[in-house]
Amino acid sequence: MFTLDNRLESDSAYVCDLTLCQVRLMNDKHYPWIILIPKVGGIREIYELSLSDQQQLMKESSKVSRILSEYTNADKMNVAALGNLVPQLHIHHIARFESDVAWPGPVWGVVNAEPYSQTALSDRVGALAELLSGSM
Amino acid sequence: MFTLDNRLESDSAYVCDLTLCQVRLMNDKHYPWIILIPKVGGIREIYELSLSDQQQLMKESSKVSRILSEYTNADKMNVAALGNLVPQLHIHHIARFESDVAWPGPVWGVVNAEPYSQTALSDRVGALAELLSGSM
Repeated sequence: MFTLDNRLESDSAYVCDLTLCQVRLMNDKHYPWIILIPKVGGIREIYELSLSDQQQLMKESSKVSRILSEYTNADKMNVAALGNLVPQLHIHHIARFESDVAWPGPVWGVVNAEPYSQTALSDRVGALAELLSGSM
Repeated sequence: MFTLDNRLESDSAYVCDLTLCQVRLMNDKHYPWIILIPKVGGIREIYELSLSDQQQLMKESSKVSRILSEYTNADKMNVAALGNLVPQLHIHHIARFESDVAWPGPVWGVVNAEPYSQTALSDRVGALAELLSGSM
């Protein structure tokens, strides 16, 4: 059974559900940063998903990457499944800019998360939910 | 046309070719670290691959992750497509251990790469090439 990890829940805001994954926006205004969490219990690695779920994850990951890149006019997308601290499988999709605080390094551990204002968060979540609502 | 990026070539050793990707071992004994480079020219993002190449990449990435995890008895696999410094699309597959120098953070930028001895490198490359030679 799928239950969202407490830390993922507290660090991010619900955007929408896709066929396999829940889509959440990290509440850190340093980077446009979406995480995909496959709604499958007890999975830590992508290769532990069924073959059909792996293929669906690729479809959803590419859709999210393309849409987030176009929406933010990113210089580069960073896509990563790490999970050293949070064991529940989640895949980061981070729009990167040559002007961002961590460029060209990875974003993890560089600066503390800085939450969006409530208005900015709901605006961004709404915009992304609408963009992602199109067919796969 | 596909030409391997010079920096990827100098930082890693050839292991084998899969249907879509060239498999290379990063020459850094801190971490068992494989990179997959799709043999497609001019691609920076996974979503820029054709849909069939995206599906093939998922198959090869999961195979490499599972085999590297089992071969090294890793605590966690880290799988990431970053490419902020090297634009050619390449996907990292890193076997992580609670005892490694970067745990629990990501590996990038923590310590300088430490090359394997020539014997250790060829032994590891040979072992991985044999493990990966099985059918997809």
